[in-house]
Amino acid sequence: MTTPIPIAEIWRGPVLESVHAGHVVIADPAGPRAVWGDADAMILPRSSCKMIQALPLVASGAADAAGLSDRHLALACASHNGAAIHTDLASQWLAALGLDDAALRCGPQDPRDPEAHAALIREGTRPAQVHNNCSGKHSGFLTLSAHLKAGPEYVDITHPVQAAVRQSFCDLTGAAGDIWAIDGCSAPNFACTVGELARAMAWMATAGTRSDGQSRAAARLVDAMMTHPELVAGEDRACTDLMRALGGRGAIKTGAEGVFVAILPQAGLGVALKAVDGATRAAECAMAAVLVHLGLLPEDHPAIRRYLGAPILNRRGLNTGSVRAAAGFP
Amino acid sequence: MTTPIPIAEIWRGPVLESVHAGHVVIADPAGPRAVWGDADAMILPRSSCKMIQALPLVASGAADAAGLSDRHLALACASHNGAAIHTDLASQWLAALGLDDAALRCGPQDPRDPEAHAALIREGTRPAQVHNNCSGKHSGFLTLSAHLKAGPEYVDITHPVQAAVRQSFCDLTGAAGDIWAIDGCSAPNFACTVGELARAMAWMATAGTRSDGQSRAAARLVDAMMTHPELVAGEDRACTDLMRALGGRGAIKTGAEGVFVAILPQAGLGVALKAVDGATRAAECAMAAVLVHLGLLPEDHPAIRRYLGAPILNRRGLNTGSVRAAAGFP
Repeated sequence: MTTPIPIAEIWRGPVLESVHAGHVVIADPAGPRAVWGDADAMILPRSSCKMIQALPLVASGAADAAGLSDRHLALACASHNGAAIHTDLASQWLAALGLDDAALRCGPQDPRDPEAHAALIREGTRPAQVHNNCSGKHSGFLTLSAHLKAGPEYVDITHPVQAAVRQSFCDLTGAAGDIWAIDGCSAPNFACTVGELARAMAWMATAGTRSDGQSRAAARLVDAMMTHPELVAGEDRACTDLMRALGGRGAIKTGAEGVFVAILPQAGLGVALKAVDGATRAAECAMAAVLVHLGLLPEDHPAIRRYLGAPILNRRGLNTGSVRAAAGFP
Repeated sequence: MTTPIPIAEIWRGPVLESVHAGHVVIADPAGPRAVWGDADAMILPRSSCKMIQALPLVASGAADAAGLSDRHLALACASHNGAAIHTDLASQWLAALGLDDAALRCGPQDPRDPEAHAALIREGTRPAQVHNNCSGKHSGFLTLSAHLKAGPEYVDITHPVQAAVRQSFCDLTGAAGDIWAIDGCSAPNFACTVGELARAMAWMATAGTRSDGQSRAAARLVDAMMTHPELVAGEDRACTDLMRALGGRGAIKTGAEGVFVAILPQAGLGVALKAVDGATRAAECAMAAVLVHLGLLPEDHPAIRRYLGAPILNRRGLNTGSVRAAAGFP
């Protein structure tokens, strides 16, 4: 077991104020190619593995049977802002299934999108489940559940939907699927190592080169994410910013507690990283640094600059410091 | 230089999901009594040292000349929620000085208080500077500035107000005051070590036993904080919760980037701690653990339970994990 290594530094004036450590793995489908920290560190991928959780939806034929578009598939892989473009699509999706907000099991969440948040306050209404950042994933679960003619409690660990998700997760990561916890959206989240998650992302990245059903489903999901980056997260979000910058060369996905993954089809690589303290700012900075390290984006690209070397502006807009990659990383 | 030690753990189901490391010092006025991590780690105290920044306001006689009450002094030491009880007092304070919101140099900040936040949205107005969590500190700066007949740019490092603050900071911590950065509220923030900050807090804790002017000023500030915990932070905040629980046996103050201090007059001790990754959840958990360790509050006190062993509820209210003190700490 290797200790985590510093991946991001918070500077304020001349002072190194805070430091984030983590584990970072770049892999090809055979396994790790480059490792910082411990590739064998056990993590919960959280929302970073939503494209794996959506795999049975497509591979089973449920998505086609329900007439889902690439936009639906992008939303199924999303941790979205709850903006109108996300909630309108989720609501239409549920209606097309003959369902409504009450069928969801993700719980309500105040939308991160400022306009949607303000609109709820102005209307004096509370957030619905469709505002939950996971409502696309859950709409996908409901679609698969209907296809499997299974019951309404689709987040139960014994439900056929979660059995299918666990199988896909184990197939792609090689993890046993016996360690799991309940995610913020109430769905099971299966544990694996950072290295296993990176390898799964490399498998997704190379899916377009294979013709089996799982691979074809994976390639469709990755294409959907890259085609609709605004649906996968939203404005002012690293996933959306970095996918737009990559312009079809990669799908990027955040997970809670400092997890971040990249699926890089052109390079045939997958990336997985975890800030051990769970900090999103560190995971975003580290992912930007890895994309530069791999030569996919220049260090001075505006989307990179927002997360790597980003200025810390205070409440009068003064530049007080910056978020930097740690010395020596990557 | 000792490495930081694990202070807080984030558990989700059976998985240790995230870990926070830090430096923790318990001191008496002579210096550290107990150390976890590195007492010599250099930090920016951020808002944890607001009672030091308010010391010249009282010691100079400016507070008495302006007729400030204990409520004003508590607000001068506050990182408040921007609720009406905070902003009303700050606005009245400014008016009594013949000033208004425009005299502040802290910048506007969206209030953390949900009702105040919603009210601004419903009214279609933007936050003012008085909503800034530091507006009490800045009202204190303006009071001292008027007393010193100094100019309006009171956050400049060369301004007489900041010269007085630097002197107090150096007096109490023993730091040289030559390393500093700009805080979120635009005021200078001077660097010291965790051990120096803890010793300064011990000096504040024992101020009531001494009769010099600085000590009498310090004792008044500590009393003001302990008497009005709701003004120092606000509802659902660790500072307020823990001070209410301590019932006059301690003043507790958070700072940005994972800093937390305690002034414990009955015990004659000071505490300072820093989560090296800057996480507030870790600093709060560690402070609760230290208060239990010192026998000041029982582990099953509701205020302790909110930060030490606190359940992590998800969006359907399910208990998915907990925030715990790290194994072996304290």
